[in-house]
Amino acid sequence: MGRWEPNARGRLEQAALELYVERGYEQTPVAEITKRAGLTERTFFRHFADKREVLFAGSGRLEELCVGAVAAAPPTATPMEAVAAALDAAAGAFEERGELVRLRQGVIDANAELRERELIKLASLSGALADALRDRGVDELAARLAAEAAIGVLKVAFGRWIDQGQERPLQPLLSECFDVLRTLSVRGADAG
Amino acid sequence: MGRWEPNARGRLEQAALELYVERGYEQTPVAEITKRAGLTERTFFRHFADKREVLFAGSGRLEELCVGAVAAAPPTATPMEAVAAALDAAAGAFEERGELVRLRQGVIDANAELRERELIKLASLSGALADALRDRGVDELAARLAAEAAIGVLKVAFGRWIDQGQERPLQPLLSECFDVLRTLSVRGADAG
Repeated sequence: MGRWEPNARGRLEQAALELYVERGYEQTPVAEITKRAGLTERTFFRHFADKREVLFAGSGRLEELCVGAVAAAPPTATPMEAVAAALDAAAGAFEERGELVRLRQGVIDANAELRERELIKLASLSGALADALRDRGVDELAARLAAEAAIGVLKVAFGRWIDQGQERPLQPLLSECFDVLRTLSVRGADAG
Repeated sequence: MGRWEPNARGRLEQAALELYVERGYEQTPVAEITKRAGLTERTFFRHFADKREVLFAGSGRLEELCVGAVAAAPPTATPMEAVAAALDAAAGAFEERGELVRLRQGVIDANAELRERELIKLASLSGALADALRDRGVDELAARLAAEAAIGVLKVAFGRWIDQGQERPLQPLLSECFDVLRTLSVRGADAG
């Protein structure tokens, strides 16, 4: 497996994201990423299948984290509370990654193919959340709707978080979105 | 512009969808579509930019229909009522197209690239609904969340409608989804 490099994966990710932002995703070969990270291409391909994978490798872990949080929600939690717990877990993971999250989003927003890929990942997350809710005994229709609502909240809150320069933590932005969502059917509570 | 063919567009669409289902989307050249429709390739390209456009040409009209319905909702309508009116308008258009809607969905579900395209179109519809809500004076956050919730409802209700063989009309399935969505934060109303 070659010699061990301290935090090779993180260094490769940082280098890749910086280069994708500076030069464009399409214009960045793997050789440039490994050069900046001071690592070999062999090491790169031990960690990532290809340069797109640098952007999406975290999706599986994010899904696991969310599914785990739904499963761990108290038995009395409503479907919305269970998916809110999932998004709080996701928010924690995003906060930990700090600037990398913003760099990644800038790369994705700039590329149509990557935006499509991101939507597919979110659709997959929605399916996983719905499955996790069903495992809690939530019925099919409620499970799918709660999962879709959660993805909507995630998109909107995450977008605000990035737009606001990550100055406010993500978690209260998520809570605010869930609160607003509850008011949208209430007459008079909506107009700006 | 060549001679006028009665309902050329509809005949081309029907022929294309049948062939996409029978042989696969990738495996169907435009020449086969025009042969089945009894029309020329010249006529095909007067109506559609390419064979993918047969599947997505209706998205723009659907978006206009939805945006128009949001604008036409009574001033007292909540954001959810306004987007529900948009989905009812969409449902009417789907019902009119009957079997073509099911054929189209089968083609899209079978092809990853088309599924990604469909998600992009839904994201665009979400943006258009949010804009239409803002034009009604709904604030930014509420507008985006109501639009996302509507897309979630549309996905779930439309999926059920197709899965159930279009036996029940789509409109009550949409209403049911909006009703369930309101209950998802209510304790004890969810477990199956």
